[in-house]
Amino acid sequence: MDKLLRTHADAIIRSAIRAVQPDEAVSRALTGQAFPGRVVLVAAGKAGWQMAKAAYDCLGDRIDSGVVVTKYDHVMGPIANFDCREAGHPVPDENSFSGTQAAIDLVKDLTEQDTVLFLLSGGGSALFEQPLIPGEELQDITSQLLACGADIVEMNTIRKRLSGVKGGRFAQLCAPAKVFSVVLSDILGDPLDMIASGPAYPDSSTCDQAIAIAKKYDLKLSEQVWELLKQETPKALDNVTTRITGSVRELCVAAAKACRDLGYEPVLLTDRLCCEAREAGSFLSSVLLTHAGSGKNLAFLAGGETVVHLTGHGKGGRNQELALAAAISMDGHSGMAVFSVGSDGTDGPTDAAGGYTDGDTASALRAKGLDIYSVLQDNDAYHALKAVDGLIFTGPTGTNVNDVAVALLRA
Amino acid sequence: MDKLLRTHADAIIRSAIRAVQPDEAVSRALTGQAFPGRVVLVAAGKAGWQMAKAAYDCLGDRIDSGVVVTKYDHVMGPIANFDCREAGHPVPDENSFSGTQAAIDLVKDLTEQDTVLFLLSGGGSALFEQPLIPGEELQDITSQLLACGADIVEMNTIRKRLSGVKGGRFAQLCAPAKVFSVVLSDILGDPLDMIASGPAYPDSSTCDQAIAIAKKYDLKLSEQVWELLKQETPKALDNVTTRITGSVRELCVAAAKACRDLGYEPVLLTDRLCCEAREAGSFLSSVLLTHAGSGKNLAFLAGGETVVHLTGHGKGGRNQELALAAAISMDGHSGMAVFSVGSDGTDGPTDAAGGYTDGDTASALRAKGLDIYSVLQDNDAYHALKAVDGLIFTGPTGTNVNDVAVALLRA
Repeated sequence: MDKLLRTHADAIIRSAIRAVQPDEAVSRALTGQAFPGRVVLVAAGKAGWQMAKAAYDCLGDRIDSGVVVTKYDHVMGPIANFDCREAGHPVPDENSFSGTQAAIDLVKDLTEQDTVLFLLSGGGSALFEQPLIPGEELQDITSQLLACGADIVEMNTIRKRLSGVKGGRFAQLCAPAKVFSVVLSDILGDPLDMIASGPAYPDSSTCDQAIAIAKKYDLKLSEQVWELLKQETPKALDNVTTRITGSVRELCVAAAKACRDLGYEPVLLTDRLCCEAREAGSFLSSVLLTHAGSGKNLAFLAGGETVVHLTGHGKGGRNQELALAAAISMDGHSGMAVFSVGSDGTDGPTDAAGGYTDGDTASALRAKGLDIYSVLQDNDAYHALKAVDGLIFTGPTGTNVNDVAVALLRA
Repeated sequence: MDKLLRTHADAIIRSAIRAVQPDEAVSRALTGQAFPGRVVLVAAGKAGWQMAKAAYDCLGDRIDSGVVVTKYDHVMGPIANFDCREAGHPVPDENSFSGTQAAIDLVKDLTEQDTVLFLLSGGGSALFEQPLIPGEELQDITSQLLACGADIVEMNTIRKRLSGVKGGRFAQLCAPAKVFSVVLSDILGDPLDMIASGPAYPDSSTCDQAIAIAKKYDLKLSEQVWELLKQETPKALDNVTTRITGSVRELCVAAAKACRDLGYEPVLLTDRLCCEAREAGSFLSSVLLTHAGSGKNLAFLAGGETVVHLTGHGKGGRNQELALAAAISMDGHSGMAVFSVGSDGTDGPTDAAGGYTDGDTASALRAKGLDIYSVLQDNDAYHALKAVDGLIFTGPTGTNVNDVAVALLRA
């Protein structure tokens, strides 16, 4: 193994994952922001407590008061005078509804000078909800939609209209106050009206679409629901500013910065990677071979979430397969390495976060009697990488913004 | 379809394929070269005649005389006073041997001031050969090696030692004259000692390896062959200068230049692409989506030779599958296109050279009732692309230096 490259890999991974922690991400989004009037905070989602804490650490007493709605066991202690609540996830419960009502109470009666600092993270869809119909009826409609095979876009188009806060409606409730929305994203491509069904983002779906879906699937709906489907969600929200933070792009950007700090010229190829893991590894190693001899220290970055098609019964994960596949063409070449890591610290059903390989990996595996093609065929990257110290361990990281793969080249 | 992007794609393909024609490639390799003494020409391979003609067009009467050994029906007419011969391919015959002898006769008695212009192309291994043992014995050894499952590297390690010209020995015969070797390459990564078994390139294999292979497979060899296996091939050749031309890298560089001429900033990702075709398409479209909104016109290039694993019974080729797969993520996005083309003008068992898709392709296919996933599952890219004018036709191009795929982005 190339010890220097491995050391660099570990340093890059540490920096990248650190940068997308909820606290760092919130702090980056708030840096340089000035809010003229009163500031109240509403945080919803699994990272709600961390995000609220980070905002308080940044802004301190500039924040008048706050409501935090997060998952059970996710409140880690008091934050100033904030009202920190726990509620049901993934299925919303009465605590979700009462927590959301507390947030609504907090943001009414604000003036045009005031700001709602709205901090949204994964799970917000269940944790931040005010149903406009009884819970059983909502549950029945969801069941009907699932039974008839409606897709997620169709489900959301219906459900946004049955909610008092989704589809941009929470931002309407905040008006005339401004909303400064900080979104911690773990969705590829960041479709803002999909993340937690977009409480503070204009809704792109229309009533006509909602009614067409109801008719298409012949949904059994009450008169009240038919009326709600006809009430349009906001198509524009001029009181809202949105900052996406902690996204896979920021993961890539932070990894790129760490590469630069170590003397590599970073090249961000993609933050939308979605192909087969092993083929991405092959692609990245072909990029390295092409630029070997360029006389430069280069780092090619690809973020996203690859897929693995199981053909065997081994143990592994997409990041481990990507790195292992890259070892095939790097075989015998010095000064190059490929590593890939899941930002949540978990790659597939393993205790590793990802994998690292370099030009020495293939021969080290041969010496152990392991053939890369056979290992991949059996989806057993974990044991192969373990045998050559190619596993990357980070432990749980407290965030999840997809993966980043890096191909390093030293002149 | 985006007519402008399609027009650009066609122009880029034309320029790139033109640049790797044997004549253009030789002319580029000879530009700016000055040869002090006598110049004699030896051309071997399927493109031998075209390469010799191009060299004559460049250097004219600076070339004293020449020997060309190409495949039957490949001599297109006389070139100056050159001795143009045709011979057996892929199996060498007496005409291969006598043609090679004529070349050996031509290069002996040259001085240190003189230059042998050695033009090598695909098929040179059969067409340029001087066996050191009787033909039947060589054939028997080849059969033994094939029967016992020896790989191509092992075969070449043995066979180079049974040849008077392979493994760098032709260059030795030219000494003290200089050898200016122009190699038209269609092998990924250009391993010079593999192309036509490297008549003018130092041999990286050793006698020890050759003997180990003979013992490993328990080959039945004559005393004479055992003696030949002990005779080392040259490990350094200080009279040789090599120019690789018409390679997949030049195909990529020419495509990049054509992109630049059309206002795109070219980014060469790789010239060693060897992954699954559809996954390369997915990777390239993810690169486009990532850079959309950058405000730049960009062209990402990937050369090489992808693979296709057959899962259906449709009609298509690797370039068509790559382009079709890219259409999935480009769906609905304007200003982006992906195309891929085989430099020989033939993609798989079809009359098309490759495929083109852009942000309109997926909806055009839907309108025809075609689903991209199903089409790929059936390996039927040809008919799908045909239905939406996405096939690229060039006709046979007269060269074969792998494929180039280009992802175009307009701001």
